[in-house]
Amino acid sequence: MRPIVLLTDFGMGDWFPGTLEGVIGSIAPAARVIHLTHGIARGDVQAGAFNLWAAFRWFPEGSIFVAVVDPGVGGPRDALLVMAHGRAFLGPDNGLLAWATGGFPGRVIRVLENPRYRLGAVSRTFHGRDVFAPAAAHLHRGTKPARFGKAKASLTELPPLRAAWRRGACSGTVVHVDGFGNAITSIREEDVLRLGREPKAAVARGKAFPWKRIYGEAGVGGPLSLVGSCGLLELAVNGGSAADRHSLRVGDAVRLT
Amino acid sequence: MRPIVLLTDFGMGDWFPGTLEGVIGSIAPAARVIHLTHGIARGDVQAGAFNLWAAFRWFPEGSIFVAVVDPGVGGPRDALLVMAHGRAFLGPDNGLLAWATGGFPGRVIRVLENPRYRLGAVSRTFHGRDVFAPAAAHLHRGTKPARFGKAKASLTELPPLRAAWRRGACSGTVVHVDGFGNAITSIREEDVLRLGREPKAAVARGKAFPWKRIYGEAGVGGPLSLVGSCGLLELAVNGGSAADRHSLRVGDAVRLT
Amino acid sequence: MRPIVLLTDFGMGDWFPGTLEGVIGSIAPAARVIHLTHGIARGDVQAGAFNLWAAFRWFPEGSIFVAVVDPGVGGPRDALLVMAHGRAFLGPDNGLLAWATGGFPGRVIRVLENPRYRLGAVSRTFHGRDVFAPAAAHLHRGTKPARFGKAKASLTELPPLRAAWRRGACSGTVVHVDGFGNAITSIREEDVLRLGREPKAAVARGKAFPWKRIYGEAGVGGPLSLVGSCGLLELAVNGGSAADRHSLRVGDAVRLT
Repeated sequence: MRPIVLLTDFGMGDWFPGTLEGVIGSIAPAARVIHLTHGIARGDVQAGAFNLWAAFRWFPEGSIFVAVVDPGVGGPRDALLVMAHGRAFLGPDNGLLAWATGGFPGRVIRVLENPRYRLGAVSRTFHGRDVFAPAAAHLHRGTKPARFGKAKASLTELPPLRAAWRRGACSGTVVHVDGFGNAITSIREEDVLRLGREPKAAVARGKAFPWKRIYGEAGVGGPLSLVGSCGLLELAVNGGSAADRHSLRVGDAVRLT
Repeated sequence: MRPIVLLTDFGMGDWFPGTLEGVIGSIAPAARVIHLTHGIARGDVQAGAFNLWAAFRWFPEGSIFVAVVDPGVGGPRDALLVMAHGRAFLGPDNGLLAWATGGFPGRVIRVLENPRYRLGAVSRTFHGRDVFAPAAAHLHRGTKPARFGKAKASLTELPPLRAAWRRGACSGTVVHVDGFGNAITSIREEDVLRLGREPKAAVARGKAFPWKRIYGEAGVGGPLSLVGSCGLLELAVNGGSAADRHSLRVGDAVRLT
Repeated sequence: MRPIVLLTDFGMGDWFPGTLEGVIGSIAPAARVIHLTHGIARGDVQAGAFNLWAAFRWFPEGSIFVAVVDPGVGGPRDALLVMAHGRAFLGPDNGLLAWATGGFPGRVIRVLENPRYRLGAVSRTFHGRDVFAPAAAHLHRGTKPARFGKAKASLTELPPLRAAWRRGACSGTVVHVDGFGNAITSIREEDVLRLGREPKAAVARGKAFPWKRIYGEAGVGGPLSLVGSCGLLELAVNGGSAADRHSLRVGDAVRLT
């Protein structure tokens, strides 16, 4: 299985997500299409980058990811194909592909510019349909990455998903809030291990989120912190939304105690 | 076709639903995955149980259902595989599987505990990905139910989907409110027939919902009751939401007049 | 690939969309099912018609569309199969199929009335499951259109997707608002070309939306008009919702200056 996996901010209320699958199916009928999510907040590149990073490893090698959160569509930003982790990532050069492909030594970046692998007439507002989906379908059919366009040395990066250590103290930031209201931080499981003892709590906005192993160890409605399903420390509330209840937002400082 | 059918409360805004399909596809590439719904209200086990019960019969025998509404994830509740109605049902032992598998004479229950059919490292917060999806994929590939773990005699039940009869009068409760705002009750079509005459109305919260055959027989915005598409009496408003307009909620008493 | 493509107003929170795929898979296991959207506003036939029209051309010939926005379900409206553009369209006769199939010279209309191609017991409230999905599956398996029921000469139409020209001036109406808040009008790209010069702006509700080529040419939050991805003039706001910010609604008059 080498699925084509879609992640966008198109929402589920319009003809956009299904149309990507129609275009892909017209070019590469054998390709399986998986809709990872179309619910990224409109224009929120970092949220798209986070979801792509969290998810890609759970898809087999050979998977082809099409990521479209593209407020600059039609403008000067490049359309990219990036080969990394044995997988392909297509999307605009605005940071969206940074976390999923960053830190991979052999990363190869190509610009999608060969008109042969786009639709005949490219609109100015829907490159998901006209540029990215067709390129993914041609890639699935065996077109070599070099055929799509010139190589590029680098792409737009995001601040790294990494904690800061200073005099034995670990701090990070909230990098994402998910649909359950969990606030996910840049502090990794290995940071927690490096502490050399069980943490007492994670503190954000002056509020302590006591360290637990599972949600259910906090009382209902109670705050907690744990290492979540993508290996990052998250701030949560048992049976509720930590983000709503404690006004947590992306960018908030978090420190481990 | 023996599809793997997914029902969760994950919502459509995150990487969770698509990731289940990635994990399944990595283990059982030939399995077709159908997303029944990921829009169950967060943590609402009864709503999940209702949707699973309403839907399962419309999928062919051999179908494998993965249901994840799991506020107790990581805690002591068992992860189950239940064979019933010629189909397989996987989910936490919290009532979620009760209505779909209840009342089936030959129901077989197994605990998912064999580490061989889980992912290598099981997180504490995402058993959909690490336990249930892999088990479903292995089941699809032919692993026998007995291989997954020990048998169990019973599972967590919910109050039965049944009306009460007393001196020739039929009453029930609202068991679910759907996205159109229809309030679905535990009164079945056979209860309506048993009445031996056409009902006049169904009454809830002091409001009479006159008996109709179709929505359009009530005036626009008018209340009505009818037997809906899962064979249960429902309270509706033509062209509107009965739940919103008449403050109907799960648990409300309903009687047939 | 001859996919069966689904468009409904069922929402994503219930067992309805997945159940259509279960029914189709039970009858035509080889048919690929694509979920175009289930997020049409409840009962909004025109929004359904618009999305179907915008999307159908991006699916290969032979595709089978099932469209269900059906507030009159169970009433006297016919269930239709329409052959047009080398594709099949199934849905209620309430205008939903008008724009996608209108203007196609060889359009053939059949009424879905043969009980052989419905489910055994047809509910009064869920013809998507009991009538339209089974018909699509049988069509996919090779049943001839004429077998489904009698021919019909016409179907319920909607006001045409067309601009008005008067003394060299072009005007139209807002025909749809999409999830990004873009207000899409009945003024087509060929109307813009017919103007013989670049437009200055499109005016709606007294507000001028200056003509641009891409969103990014307006300042952030600034209004603009351009030809969007379905070939129609749309009113937009760069990085925001034109509909919210300028109270645009379906039916609003728009003129080109």
